[in-house]
Amino acid sequence: MTTDTALNISDGDPVLGTDFAVEMVRQMRAVDAYGTYDSWPAARILDPFVLTKEQKREIPVVGDPDEIVMSRVKAFYNAIAALIEKECGLMAVPTINLTHEGFGRALITVGKLVVMDKTLRDVHRFSFPTLSKMKDEADKVLSVALEIVGEYPKVAGM
Amino acid sequence: MTTDTALNISDGDPVLGTDFAVEMVRQMRAVDAYGTYDSWPAARILDPFVLTKEQKREIPVVGDPDEIVMSRVKAFYNAIAALIEKECGLMAVPTINLTHEGFGRALITVGKLVVMDKTLRDVHRFSFPTLSKMKDEADKVLSVALEIVGEYPKVAGM
Repeated sequence: MTTDTALNISDGDPVLGTDFAVEMVRQMRAVDAYGTYDSWPAARILDPFVLTKEQKREIPVVGDPDEIVMSRVKAFYNAIAALIEKECGLMAVPTINLTHEGFGRALITVGKLVVMDKTLRDVHRFSFPTLSKMKDEADKVLSVALEIVGEYPKVAGM
Repeated sequence: MTTDTALNISDGDPVLGTDFAVEMVRQMRAVDAYGTYDSWPAARILDPFVLTKEQKREIPVVGDPDEIVMSRVKAFYNAIAALIEKECGLMAVPTINLTHEGFGRALITVGKLVVMDKTLRDVHRFSFPTLSKMKDEADKVLSVALEIVGEYPKVAGM
């Protein structure tokens, strides 16, 4: 722990060295207009994505997602899109559509192919129990996306 | 003209009888929570979609789209999605993603197939020069969408 308040991700977490975590940090820094994160280690930048059961329970069940939570949701799907792009060499475009009270839809498209289509719920509580579980979720989306692209390369290339 | 202020769509406009205009009116009524439109003729309900050059010029070039304009944009793409669905028998889902100052992206997907992908600009000035031009635009999107579905029925059925 490098900061006063305890983090849910430790600096030595091996997941921090993976392509996914590196891309996540890059996405978070990209929207850090004031350079707040410049001096922060990766663990601290990604820490808000991880909430323990107790921390999550403290957030009201019903609520509107604020800009900060939304920027995290976007960073997560942007990172996945970036990894898809890296793997298949085709542009992957994320689209997030929120309706009301944190419900919505997240899409990633490659050409004319929808490679991910997720219903979003409780966006204001968007989080993962551990960094490792967050990476698992991203890996799952990534592998399904690459499978679909492999199956329909013509549609992905449109 | 049935109202005091002159409308850009006349009650006798033959386009009002088309599937597209009927669906547009249905979409607008669907979001009319207070029943304001109940007593309105179709021409009056669809009138805000049509702006003359002069009327459009009166709107500032840069601006944030408000809820009312956004509901119109959604009604337009919802109507197109409904027509796609009617024609091909598969669910068509519209997604609208606004970034800032009225820029964004409108998508319609059928299964895992993107049948429409449009960059939105100047959403706060969203309008058409005539009702007929509005229908032309919808028809164009519809025919391209049905062509793509016909080309990749397996992806559309996923």
